[in-house]
Amino acid sequence: MSLFADLLSTVFDRRYRGATEPDRKNRSIEELCTDLISNAGEVSGMALARLILDRYAAMEWEEKRAFFAHLTQDQGIDTAAMRAALDGFEQNPGKASYRTLMDLAEPPRQEIARRLNQVPGATGQLVEMRADLLRMTDHNPEFEMLDLDLRHLFSSWFNRGFLVLRPISWETPAEILEKIIAYEAVHAIHSWDDLRRRLQPADRRCFALFHPAMPNEPLIFVEVALTQGVPDSVQALLADGRAPLRAQDADTAVFYSISNCQAGLAGISFGNSLIKQVVADLSRELDGLKTFVTLSPIPGLTRWLEKQGRTMPLDPLAQRQITAHYLVHAKRPDGGPVDPVGRFHLNNGALVHAVHAGADTSENGIRQSGGVMVNYLYDLAQITQNHEKFATSGTVAASSEVRSLAGAVALQDA
Amino acid sequence: MSLFADLLSTVFDRRYRGATEPDRKNRSIEELCTDLISNAGEVSGMALARLILDRYAAMEWEEKRAFFAHLTQDQGIDTAAMRAALDGFEQNPGKASYRTLMDLAEPPRQEIARRLNQVPGATGQLVEMRADLLRMTDHNPEFEMLDLDLRHLFSSWFNRGFLVLRPISWETPAEILEKIIAYEAVHAIHSWDDLRRRLQPADRRCFALFHPAMPNEPLIFVEVALTQGVPDSVQALLADGRAPLRAQDADTAVFYSISNCQAGLAGISFGNSLIKQVVADLSRELDGLKTFVTLSPIPGLTRWLEKQGRTMPLDPLAQRQITAHYLVHAKRPDGGPVDPVGRFHLNNGALVHAVHAGADTSENGIRQSGGVMVNYLYDLAQITQNHEKFATSGTVAASSEVRSLAGAVALQDA
Amino acid sequence: MSLFADLLSTVFDRRYRGATEPDRKNRSIEELCTDLISNAGEVSGMALARLILDRYAAMEWEEKRAFFAHLTQDQGIDTAAMRAALDGFEQNPGKASYRTLMDLAEPPRQEIARRLNQVPGATGQLVEMRADLLRMTDHNPEFEMLDLDLRHLFSSWFNRGFLVLRPISWETPAEILEKIIAYEAVHAIHSWDDLRRRLQPADRRCFALFHPAMPNEPLIFVEVALTQGVPDSVQALLADGRAPLRAQDADTAVFYSISNCQAGLAGISFGNSLIKQVVADLSRELDGLKTFVTLSPIPGLTRWLEKQGRTMPLDPLAQRQITAHYLVHAKRPDGGPVDPVGRFHLNNGALVHAVHAGADTSENGIRQSGGVMVNYLYDLAQITQNHEKFATSGTVAASSEVRSLAGAVALQDA
Amino acid sequence: MSLFADLLSTVFDRRYRGATEPDRKNRSIEELCTDLISNAGEVSGMALARLILDRYAAMEWEEKRAFFAHLTQDQGIDTAAMRAALDGFEQNPGKASYRTLMDLAEPPRQEIARRLNQVPGATGQLVEMRADLLRMTDHNPEFEMLDLDLRHLFSSWFNRGFLVLRPISWETPAEILEKIIAYEAVHAIHSWDDLRRRLQPADRRCFALFHPAMPNEPLIFVEVALTQGVPDSVQALLADGRAPLRAQDADTAVFYSISNCQAGLAGISFGNSLIKQVVADLSRELDGLKTFVTLSPIPGLTRWLEKQGRTMPLDPLAQRQITAHYLVHAKRPDGGPVDPVGRFHLNNGALVHAVHAGADTSENGIRQSGGVMVNYLYDLAQITQNHEKFATSGTVAASSEVRSLAGAVALQDA
Repeated sequence: MSLFADLLSTVFDRRYRGATEPDRKNRSIEELCTDLISNAGEVSGMALARLILDRYAAMEWEEKRAFFAHLTQDQGIDTAAMRAALDGFEQNPGKASYRTLMDLAEPPRQEIARRLNQVPGATGQLVEMRADLLRMTDHNPEFEMLDLDLRHLFSSWFNRGFLVLRPISWETPAEILEKIIAYEAVHAIHSWDDLRRRLQPADRRCFALFHPAMPNEPLIFVEVALTQGVPDSVQALLADGRAPLRAQDADTAVFYSISNCQAGLAGISFGNSLIKQVVADLSRELDGLKTFVTLSPIPGLTRWLEKQGRTMPLDPLAQRQITAHYLVHAKRPDGGPVDPVGRFHLNNGALVHAVHAGADTSENGIRQSGGVMVNYLYDLAQITQNHEKFATSGTVAASSEVRSLAGAVALQDA
Repeated sequence: MSLFADLLSTVFDRRYRGATEPDRKNRSIEELCTDLISNAGEVSGMALARLILDRYAAMEWEEKRAFFAHLTQDQGIDTAAMRAALDGFEQNPGKASYRTLMDLAEPPRQEIARRLNQVPGATGQLVEMRADLLRMTDHNPEFEMLDLDLRHLFSSWFNRGFLVLRPISWETPAEILEKIIAYEAVHAIHSWDDLRRRLQPADRRCFALFHPAMPNEPLIFVEVALTQGVPDSVQALLADGRAPLRAQDADTAVFYSISNCQAGLAGISFGNSLIKQVVADLSRELDGLKTFVTLSPIPGLTRWLEKQGRTMPLDPLAQRQITAHYLVHAKRPDGGPVDPVGRFHLNNGALVHAVHAGADTSENGIRQSGGVMVNYLYDLAQITQNHEKFATSGTVAASSEVRSLAGAVALQDA
Repeated sequence: MSLFADLLSTVFDRRYRGATEPDRKNRSIEELCTDLISNAGEVSGMALARLILDRYAAMEWEEKRAFFAHLTQDQGIDTAAMRAALDGFEQNPGKASYRTLMDLAEPPRQEIARRLNQVPGATGQLVEMRADLLRMTDHNPEFEMLDLDLRHLFSSWFNRGFLVLRPISWETPAEILEKIIAYEAVHAIHSWDDLRRRLQPADRRCFALFHPAMPNEPLIFVEVALTQGVPDSVQALLADGRAPLRAQDADTAVFYSISNCQAGLAGISFGNSLIKQVVADLSRELDGLKTFVTLSPIPGLTRWLEKQGRTMPLDPLAQRQITAHYLVHAKRPDGGPVDPVGRFHLNNGALVHAVHAGADTSENGIRQSGGVMVNYLYDLAQITQNHEKFATSGTVAASSEVRSLAGAVALQDA
Repeated sequence: MSLFADLLSTVFDRRYRGATEPDRKNRSIEELCTDLISNAGEVSGMALARLILDRYAAMEWEEKRAFFAHLTQDQGIDTAAMRAALDGFEQNPGKASYRTLMDLAEPPRQEIARRLNQVPGATGQLVEMRADLLRMTDHNPEFEMLDLDLRHLFSSWFNRGFLVLRPISWETPAEILEKIIAYEAVHAIHSWDDLRRRLQPADRRCFALFHPAMPNEPLIFVEVALTQGVPDSVQALLADGRAPLRAQDADTAVFYSISNCQAGLAGISFGNSLIKQVVADLSRELDGLKTFVTLSPIPGLTRWLEKQGRTMPLDPLAQRQITAHYLVHAKRPDGGPVDPVGRFHLNNGALVHAVHAGADTSENGIRQSGGVMVNYLYDLAQITQNHEKFATSGTVAASSEVRSLAGAVALQDA
């Protein structure tokens, strides 16, 4: 099928490129972009778009920088024309004046991106292009305007309604599995055997979101363990040689790793809908599941303690108390929680359910949080309410146990 | 599979609706739209979006009109704020001022539509919504601004790169086939048996473009006959009881019917890429195919003759001469050809290949063009060149035979 | 996909036929069959097999009869050789003597059928061949030996473990749906709209068994209605314009039509496993389903009454009594129930649950059973026990209501 | 999909097992087998079959041996009854006597195997059972009769017409790929990266045959390299870091490894049809392919030289001469070639095309054939003719070059 599709597009390309390319060889990529949007019809648009993407793919870093500079400087909005159109619309509001205004209120580079996207496979290439761009914005802050435009487009293209949730299992094509290995960002997957241990046992699940135009590229994925009771150690959860549970005997689903895959989709959030849909799917599949929790790292804990001039205590209870305090009370100047993982789950409507000392004894776990981990609980009946309180008043939802742990600490917060 | 998906979403909905709906029962759809975009997170967004779509689906015509009036008047751009943002950006161009400007330069109703589109299945409902809107713009011309916004979004969502070409055959699900019957706009399909005659014989093909978020809704489809030689009669082509040709014996592929399916996607053009991809696919499949032509109606011919104060002559040669003249020389004030089907194919890069008298003897064929039909030829090697000449100078590409027929007529053109 | 497969096999055939056919043109089909099994390797076997199948497909009725006569007379067992092999095995039992005996104990026509079956698509053609054969056995009882051989092979090929259950819905390919229309044997489907009414509503289901080598040919299918309570009228069940139930509100699944599709698979039973798997699937899908019943015709009732010299009474209660009596007590000489539908369901382990007067008011319903119908109940917890009692002692399981109705009749049974 | 299927069968099993198992706990597997075939209906048959398979799966080696002894001794043919049935048939040939004879001419253990095969997934378990059996036949030659019966059944079940060819690529599920790694029998695959090098490059292909009832178990697979010219070294062919060829630039397809996967299917040949179908598919896909060859090991060469009292010469030309001689002239007592790989390809209709010294410098290659390898050529136009000459007169087809090399050696053949 995919082979067949390849063949067809090859034939098409060959014939079509033959017909159109010659006279464009000497045009710069900047000229080609201008051609692309000046061209009224679609006929040569696709060939042009492909040519531009091919040129881009072959560029060195500095050429890419020059290309982005062109898009930033020469393909942005024309403020004078926009102001005139605004005047025109105010004086005579209607279809014609509105169309003129809307056309001018959008920079040409957005239309360039849309036309590039006509080519089969272009979506992934444009996501890659934004990843390149993001690597340059530190040194080229002016590119942030271009980035805003791409992000605006991508929000529309990667709308939740267009995404597809697929289970990832040992039956999944190797091509996708090798990306799961590469993209795992929380607890590294060391080999295909390691991957198999996370996918094949009866008490393991994995799910990813995909976009139909990038069918082999997961956007985000979550790894799930089915357990009896809420786990308090990631090493125990992932231990080699453990005896798997029968799925129907599990009462708890644990989201122990969530990884974003595409640097070029930074700022476009999928995690919330991923988790909610997985909760719904697993509920349906397994009647016995009653509890949906994470077993999450606390990446900001050590750093925060240092800023406070404190160190992690040795006593496990004291570790849990100070961690609970951090998760519930430590806030940024904007009022949001200091911990980034906490921000994500709390904004999704989860609550801080429990904290565990000695839960991640890996080097990374010790370094970032003294080995402490946290469970965030997803209770569908309370998600909306939790989220709304969090979004409007910054209230961190927490279990009574966590609240009581947090209250035991007298600390002057940052 | 699809059943399974349904079940899941049902479970999800049930739980989720239970959790969120109660307190929204008394809010108007306008208030809900405002909630939808004011809500920072996504958590309750999807439930809100679904509620709005459900409300819309249950509306009477006048309620819909009121809803569109709300979107037009209250969810449009704020020109004063936009002007201020424009000033701010000019004075201090940068990420922050650009973001403010871009946010204000897009009317809130675009973001409303994007958020509605988060819901599985929403894309089709939004396309339906625009179809409703277009039925009202004659009486409510102010809605055309809203329509421009929807069209702008749809152009992005229905980008060629996101569409999928699928063959339509007697193996296609009945659910889709019944839509092919309903949407056929050129030569009506009278029954399932009639449909089978267009799909099942070895010398027939059909292809449609689909969007992944509307997997059961063709966007546009083309019916193809494989023949020996270029046909000169649509009744002969579709005759019941004819002996089918073996596909490998055909030298010509005839596009004898192209139908757009979605009123709500008016103005978003797919036909060009559909035809080109079908040409490429068929070339690949069948080595013997050398010629790709249409057998097209000429919907504007009779009307044009009447405007000229002429009537269709009786002599077949004279019919062909006047038709060739019409196709090649009759122009609108803007310089484009009078005939709408001609505009479509010429803009795609086709050329006027041949005209045939007595080619469509149906009532409709006699009425609109005195029974004359035309073949447009798609020659991949010349498509780009033809298109560019047509787009830049309005030149109508035609075979020497057609040019000579057209030249035989002395007529004062409109 | 399927198209692609076709193309490939075409190429293959063309090349391959070219290489092998010439020297076989003058050989009779009988000689070709002998070639087919004498040929040691497989190399030319497939070409030979295809040639034989093509020849058969082009035969007139009398040619087919001659071919079957050849298989019956010339490709049967050699009793003398078999006896010698039996002697040999008894004197010196072991691998070699056993192989010789087994080879001779199976008639060559079985190996011919197996080799014909190498060709892609041959399975369906062989099933058709047996359907032809069965149409001749009345006049050619000697063909029954050949039939036993084919039936033996087909039992092996169509083993339950090789069959696949698929839902049939309005999303099913038209190619399969037209066969559902054609094969429905109980309550005729009159049109595509009629079919849609049996597939598309939320309270309707249909399932069929398929063999992977005949992917477009259902072997048997069952139509199911989801209801509240056990229905007592098939016309009410199938009424046009009725309001569909939400599937989750149903408590009962009604198997109202079961049709075998392949005359060539007569005597090979699929119905039992079809029903049991559908019960299991529906239980899983819909928690609310508690009762699984048929609404079945009683095809032998009128005929049996006539043999008894009785006529159907007018009073509904009397109708139900005599019907209950018939179903529970009327037996064939071999001890099995007279009613063929009853035999099928009772042998599957169902019980006679209820009888309804005026339940099928169609012409056919009135003729065969005076309009009375019966529900057989499938209770998974009792199926095995019911079946075993039925299989060993002929006991007909029935509800107490039916037993009481049956007991009210004093009749001398046939 | 597969998950869903699993769930369903789980539900089904649970309910069904609950209903039937209790009273069978104390019956031996031998008694259960007798129940299985004495049971007239299918109702409890599937539960019984599953129970037997579960029992078998849990058995120790000696228990299995006892089970096979039971099948061999107690479930074989009854020669006295068979002789009586033979008499009966001769005296009164007809349907009844034929049925009796056929029933008795087949040992009950065949019907046991067929009924076991009703259970979903049983086919693979039965193949495993035969693999166990074959491991015992050296010490238990009496089991060879049972083996003949299983092989007879499997020939029918694994008929070429039921098998499906599927490409194996980097898009194939990991579950299948790990089996490719495990089953590769010619040139070992050392890791997932090694596997990727054989699947992912544009000039590599792999194809496997599958049976629909064992969808995750390849039966046989072939690895193909696309090359320019016929290769003379497998190390060069598989070199890490080589630059891949564009598929459309290849003129030759090289079958460099063919591996049977299922020990339990020994003696049932798939290789011939696999190669022919792959040749046909690749011809279709890639117009440029003109030559189809193997690059094959010569596993019997060293052993044969030793028997001849010869050693491999050092001179490459002399190596090629003696190898050519071996391949063309060295025969077994039955007239077939000594070399097993040679027998396979020659029987398929291939010819000995070329021999290469230093072509496999691996330890295994040096040991078995002094590093010499051979190309067998598949020329579809000559396959049938080659095969028939080989099958009837033992003639080994060879290129003139190979014949001339072979002729240069004066050797007294074994």
